[in-house]
Amino acid sequence: MTVTHADVKAAGERVADHVLRTPILEISPGVIFKLEQVQRSGSFKVRGAFNRILSAGTLPPTGVIAASGGNHGLAVAYAARALGVRAEIFVPTVTSPVKLAGLRALGAEITQTGAIYSAAAEAAAKRAAETGALPVHAYDQPEVIAGQGTLALELMEQAPGVDTVLVAVGGGGLASGVSLGLREGVKLVAVEPELIPGLHRALRAGHPVPVEVSGVGADALGATQVGGLAFGILSGAGVESVLVSDEAIIDARRRLWSEHRLVVEHAGAAAYAALLSGAYRPADGERVAVVLCGSNTDPATLTA
Amino acid sequence: MTVTHADVKAAGERVADHVLRTPILEISPGVIFKLEQVQRSGSFKVRGAFNRILSAGTLPPTGVIAASGGNHGLAVAYAARALGVRAEIFVPTVTSPVKLAGLRALGAEITQTGAIYSAAAEAAAKRAAETGALPVHAYDQPEVIAGQGTLALELMEQAPGVDTVLVAVGGGGLASGVSLGLREGVKLVAVEPELIPGLHRALRAGHPVPVEVSGVGADALGATQVGGLAFGILSGAGVESVLVSDEAIIDARRRLWSEHRLVVEHAGAAAYAALLSGAYRPADGERVAVVLCGSNTDPATLTA
Ligand SMILES: Cc1ncc(COP(=O)(O)O)c(C=O)c1O
Ligand SMILES: Cc1ncc(COP(=O)(O)O)c(C=O)c1O
Repeated sequence: MTVTHADVKAAGERVADHVLRTPILEISPGVIFKLEQVQRSGSFKVRGAFNRILSAGTLPPTGVIAASGGNHGLAVAYAARALGVRAEIFVPTVTSPVKLAGLRALGAEITQTGAIYSAAAEAAAKRAAETGALPVHAYDQPEVIAGQGTLALELMEQAPGVDTVLVAVGGGGLASGVSLGLREGVKLVAVEPELIPGLHRALRAGHPVPVEVSGVGADALGATQVGGLAFGILSGAGVESVLVSDEAIIDARRRLWSEHRLVVEHAGAAAYAALLSGAYRPADGERVAVVLCGSNTDPATLTA
Repeated sequence: MTVTHADVKAAGERVADHVLRTPILEISPGVIFKLEQVQRSGSFKVRGAFNRILSAGTLPPTGVIAASGGNHGLAVAYAARALGVRAEIFVPTVTSPVKLAGLRALGAEITQTGAIYSAAAEAAAKRAAETGALPVHAYDQPEVIAGQGTLALELMEQAPGVDTVLVAVGGGGLASGVSLGLREGVKLVAVEPELIPGLHRALRAGHPVPVEVSGVGADALGATQVGGLAFGILSGAGVESVLVSDEAIIDARRRLWSEHRLVVEHAGAAAYAALLSGAYRPADGERVAVVLCGSNTDPATLTA
């Protein structure tokens, strides 16, 4: 089972009428934001969700089922509502009140169980076996990865001169999809919180390894280990892996608001934190795109 | 004294290295946002401020001076700092704490006087006569109008198929500049709060008339009467004038956050309020661009 650039292209056509083509913003010469935080459902996750559901053909009457720290659940619930399908979403207790409220507003059936994502994922898998609902994985399915990659197709059209793309990594669906969607020769930098270094450790070990999950990114980047599919793609692609502190993430998020009037959740600021903190240092003249990937957050926390 | 499309084009070249080319976002087929709220200094006002200051040639040692409800002051202070010039800014007491804090952070000399913009403007004019500083008017100067119009040049390149553009009106600098910057045949809809109908009344009377100033838009759209230059341009261009209630503005601002993850101040939501409330109803197939023009606001007020 593998995923290809052609799969990403096919996904692009499949989801085009359902997701936004999110804009880019060049904030200074050679520094470009991909404004994916304004995407429907508040994150890129809706790209993979639509691609998975639309690829499935006839759906079971029990609809779709997913486990999620929050954003993937919001995306699956959003897509299910748009397509007139039932959705059952399992979330851990780490999921923020804002994300829970969003899920309720979308009319999904919600079960909150387990402290972190992996526990909710186990419960969802059990439930899926009982009901026969279509599982939509948060990162480890080819259709999900191909869907996330559609972001990179847009970016290559919008900013053809870009040398490097920075993305945040949880289970690795976004980074691996983007890796497949980029033009040959464009460098990918995968950014993780120091407190959840799943890909970083996996690249050293040569295979996915479990890590502890904590910190401000836990409700979005909190996969216990990077997905097997994503690992295969990312390790093969020679991705550069960097880590950022929670302080750097918090600072980047505040500056995205105060200097650029963009509101993101902590996970959505991780990639920019790598640039601001120097965890990734572009060469002279290197043109960098930073993916702002999520905004399911309470904006009041920006000025508190 | 008149302003032309050629002046707007010249302004575009003058300010290009100093202001952002703000992106557009198509939220549904034929409904496009111009994301000017992410502009430097948090509003479009920086376009006019740079154009006025850069057009002036040698500046007096006392620098520049402006009166403002807040956003124009922020823009002039931002431009002055970027160009290494002193800035003195007069603001009324209606100016929000967020805008005052922003002005202080930019290092401007601030005088707070008078209840509304017009009172601060009188005090600034007196002071300018004493110091010889270059006055940068909030809306009634050719260079300021031409600068604001550069937004329309960008929009025409970004969305050449647009039929209609909706903009908010205070003193009319933005709307008149945009009117001059648009391609021939593109319709302009000027949106004002019902509580500050300066242009609306002027168009009926055939000349600028003073109006009362109150409501949620007062610290940005609170000019006592539309500018003479702007009135001449807008009445000649056959602009359509519509009014929106404060409730419609508040609702549009909340929906811009909850549905689109865009944070704007009340004035920045006025144009969208015209669309959502039905104050302006596009025909079938009409492609509409809505200018989101300012974001100098406390995001905490979105979830309070
Ligand atoms: C905002 C945001 N950014 C990044 C990620 C990481 O995506 P992935 O799990 O595909 O690596 C997530 C995952 O939920 C997310 O919600
Ligand atoms: C956010 C915002 N929108 C619109 C306007 C209106 O601009 P004008 O006075 O040029 O009509 C202003 C003026 O301050 C503003 O700050």
